[in-house]
Amino acid sequence: MERRYRLVLACPDRVGIVAMVSNFISSHGGSISDANQHSDPTTGWFFMRVEISAQSLPFSLEALQEAFSPIAQSFNMEWHITDSSKPKRVILMASRESHCLADLLYRYHANELFCEIPCVISNHDDLRKMVEWHDIPYHHMPVDKEDKQPHFDAVRSLIEEYQADTIVLARYMQILPPELCDLYPHRIINIHHSFLPSFAGAKPYHQAHERGVKLIGATCHYVTQDLDAGPIIDQDVIRISHRDLPEDMVRLGRDVEKNVLARGLRWHLEDKILVHGNKTVVFN
Amino acid sequence: MERRYRLVLACPDRVGIVAMVSNFISSHGGSISDANQHSDPTTGWFFMRVEISAQSLPFSLEALQEAFSPIAQSFNMEWHITDSSKPKRVILMASRESHCLADLLYRYHANELFCEIPCVISNHDDLRKMVEWHDIPYHHMPVDKEDKQPHFDAVRSLIEEYQADTIVLARYMQILPPELCDLYPHRIINIHHSFLPSFAGAKPYHQAHERGVKLIGATCHYVTQDLDAGPIIDQDVIRISHRDLPEDMVRLGRDVEKNVLARGLRWHLEDKILVHGNKTVVFN
Amino acid sequence: MERRYRLVLACPDRVGIVAMVSNFISSHGGSISDANQHSDPTTGWFFMRVEISAQSLPFSLEALQEAFSPIAQSFNMEWHITDSSKPKRVILMASRESHCLADLLYRYHANELFCEIPCVISNHDDLRKMVEWHDIPYHHMPVDKEDKQPHFDAVRSLIEEYQADTIVLARYMQILPPELCDLYPHRIINIHHSFLPSFAGAKPYHQAHERGVKLIGATCHYVTQDLDAGPIIDQDVIRISHRDLPEDMVRLGRDVEKNVLARGLRWHLEDKILVHGNKTVVFN
Amino acid sequence: MERRYRLVLACPDRVGIVAMVSNFISSHGGSISDANQHSDPTTGWFFMRVEISAQSLPFSLEALQEAFSPIAQSFNMEWHITDSSKPKRVILMASRESHCLADLLYRYHANELFCEIPCVISNHDDLRKMVEWHDIPYHHMPVDKEDKQPHFDAVRSLIEEYQADTIVLARYMQILPPELCDLYPHRIINIHHSFLPSFAGAKPYHQAHERGVKLIGATCHYVTQDLDAGPIIDQDVIRISHRDLPEDMVRLGRDVEKNVLARGLRWHLEDKILVHGNKTVVFN
Repeated sequence: MERRYRLVLACPDRVGIVAMVSNFISSHGGSISDANQHSDPTTGWFFMRVEISAQSLPFSLEALQEAFSPIAQSFNMEWHITDSSKPKRVILMASRESHCLADLLYRYHANELFCEIPCVISNHDDLRKMVEWHDIPYHHMPVDKEDKQPHFDAVRSLIEEYQADTIVLARYMQILPPELCDLYPHRIINIHHSFLPSFAGAKPYHQAHERGVKLIGATCHYVTQDLDAGPIIDQDVIRISHRDLPEDMVRLGRDVEKNVLARGLRWHLEDKILVHGNKTVVFN
Repeated sequence: MERRYRLVLACPDRVGIVAMVSNFISSHGGSISDANQHSDPTTGWFFMRVEISAQSLPFSLEALQEAFSPIAQSFNMEWHITDSSKPKRVILMASRESHCLADLLYRYHANELFCEIPCVISNHDDLRKMVEWHDIPYHHMPVDKEDKQPHFDAVRSLIEEYQADTIVLARYMQILPPELCDLYPHRIINIHHSFLPSFAGAKPYHQAHERGVKLIGATCHYVTQDLDAGPIIDQDVIRISHRDLPEDMVRLGRDVEKNVLARGLRWHLEDKILVHGNKTVVFN
Repeated sequence: MERRYRLVLACPDRVGIVAMVSNFISSHGGSISDANQHSDPTTGWFFMRVEISAQSLPFSLEALQEAFSPIAQSFNMEWHITDSSKPKRVILMASRESHCLADLLYRYHANELFCEIPCVISNHDDLRKMVEWHDIPYHHMPVDKEDKQPHFDAVRSLIEEYQADTIVLARYMQILPPELCDLYPHRIINIHHSFLPSFAGAKPYHQAHERGVKLIGATCHYVTQDLDAGPIIDQDVIRISHRDLPEDMVRLGRDVEKNVLARGLRWHLEDKILVHGNKTVVFN
Repeated sequence: MERRYRLVLACPDRVGIVAMVSNFISSHGGSISDANQHSDPTTGWFFMRVEISAQSLPFSLEALQEAFSPIAQSFNMEWHITDSSKPKRVILMASRESHCLADLLYRYHANELFCEIPCVISNHDDLRKMVEWHDIPYHHMPVDKEDKQPHFDAVRSLIEEYQADTIVLARYMQILPPELCDLYPHRIINIHHSFLPSFAGAKPYHQAHERGVKLIGATCHYVTQDLDAGPIIDQDVIRISHRDLPEDMVRLGRDVEKNVLARGLRWHLEDKILVHGNKTVVFN
């Protein structure tokens, strides 16, 4: 895959944004490989993502950021530019359930997910062998139910030590403390095993069985202080029937969870997700 | 379609139910065209539906009911037998939104739904022309916001007068009073324009837009005293994106609503839905 | 809905297209409401669609076309600009099956499809009442199996007389002669009742039943000289089971056909479909 | 999971089959946990599958088979009874693509698939490490393009040696010779990476890209002498767009292939698939 710069921006909508941005690019000979815009009439905001062939521009990433900065300022943009050749550093966190972790590790191994995985953190030791087979360090960080703070402190230290920029909660069954959520806004991805906002909280498949729904689902979202209420990245569902017990739902739901989480992470790694308020714009 | 008797039953599970029922049928020369069973380990109940070629049995419907009655009693069955050649009598209720009503009328007209529609009741006069084109009486029954009881009394009188056995709320936007719900258990079918239990109550598409979900849905359920909380018959969803405003969701959701309601009604007309507690077994 | 100009273009890809187009727009104060680009590496072509608020530009449609023309020429664009307030003129053609026609007429009636329907043409008289209820002229044009040419000559005359720019074959079961296909490139939309390229030609549901597939589908495509082989606009499928006979597939398939055709027509009316070679780019 | 006998039968339809079978079961005190019937009017055949609690019957598997045999003969049944506690022996065959193999191994490892996998056979050595991590023997059996017979002879020897009763072609890219297909009727499961009958043969995703379809799919089927034409077990699809190149389809298609193959194998392991002619009845 050819190396690209990805310019991602959001700003109050007004005339001339696309022209200004595309002028800037073409005036330097930049070749646009992919571009998306979205204008949201309910918020009055404008969202844009452009992929530019890196070799068509006479800039390093830093020089490009500097050159673009005045435009960004004049339009009050929230923005960033990334280099597609520079993988994000993703820490995976898990508990005992292996399906999401195994799926992400497989995709990583098969080069489906372009990232580095500096380590896996878990509050149990069960998945060590699977992780270490992929030559990834495994940190078993037990949780003391009486006092969870030491666990979260250790997690935070590891995130900093490994210089991770993304954290994936791959069925990590602990609720992150508010300060940790706030430290990494739009950088912690969770998979919840229900079609949110239905069945937030614990044991969603049992809740679904109790209610007698005919479809079950999974939701991938950014983590915020509000449990299972952060910006939704993606969702999907699968049909069930009266024959399916909670344990069948658990099994059937796994495939949905895996796929939705992998899709959401992939978009995140490709800088395709823009967050505004509590909602996402996904340029997929 | 060949005429069939449909035997539908539910009872506490124990050894020998299928044998007893199928013996009864075959001992009279009955030919089974279709059969379904379900044994629910969580409730300990057994559910069964059998279609028997009517001409293979030496019974009228009444005689068959009488002959089967002792078996039903000995197993403490909740049961009924219907004659596939006898259409149910279905009253459609609507408000101003035409899509569900138009869809059901079309399917009725095209012989997709085997039933009689003795009348349509609405609290507005908007859909009269569409209904009368199908030669179906249209009853405009306005609702007085200060006192809705006269409206519901009139509705009840019409149901009785027309001897309806099924009532379909095809986007009829009023909440039925408890006593009306109780009068017709498992015989009033509603379509709710969300994937329940998410977004019960008013303006579900606006709630969905607010929450930023990535799929919207519709739910067909039997009406009980609890608003939008009755036994779910069927559900479906459609994918949306950040580009879709509430009005787009309304438009996209219409197709889901129509299809889910038509499917649910069809199963009801074919006696394929068994209700136990607040859940359905659908032998489709 | 605010009035918009829709600029749709395709040309060989090169640096500066987006900049040139967006400059042109912003230099005249044009406000971009929606924009999509696609660069196809396999063909080396670039595709773009922009919606511009009409009142933000100092141009009539004709003046805008004239002003843009030099840019279009310099990039060798295939292009057109339309006015969202000017409805397309769509002739519907049907045979005996009513479901697609009824669905389109309903959506037209409910203002879901922004277009004019100057007439319906059919080789049978069956659907006259349904069409005339919508105050649309119905032309019964019988087909002589020995000599179909007079039928097609009459169809062509009607198309010209009514100045139609789009023709929808809503389960019109005749094969159009090559010269008619060529006269209206990318303007004749057909719905085929299979998931093409499977089961082209006659009786696709029977072919599907014979083969034992587990999903059936429908395909909306532009008509070309090659039967059922034109550029695909949209497709969808529905799950079936071993219980479904060909007549069940016919019934289940109808809903897929209706939805796929309505969606395809909607995109066509909104100038969201670009055709290149035998494939479509759909900016939906 | 409680131990069960699974009685699976197919025979020409006539009055009294269900009664005879259920009588036989209940007369011995057998408790039916699950039952399905299907009567196919196009072929005049009847299909049935019953799960009976093993401990409710006074029979060993062999004794049960012997006791049921006279009934089976009197109805000319094709039939078998299996013991749910006895895992099938499944040989997986692969080539270089790892996704289906990795997925099946994971599900096996996670106890989602109840079977034994005595070995994996591949014509390449690439996947050895992955397989051996699961403590499963890996047989690298190269294929000589000039003379493939020695390869297939070796495969056949391994199948016999390991006493496999099921062979899964998990993206094994060789065409089995006719005599091997015939040796294991309805016991060799293949995953084809297209929505058959579209795009049989080589490079289906490239064919799909060429044709411009809007959905791609995968098909799980029993292998027969006719390439990609055996009885279909399951199929599924995923939506694509004009942006997806063949390599994107390959990636997106992998998830469909994995899920469809795993589902098909699961049904096979649970004796839920009955084959008649070139079609399957799946009691799922």
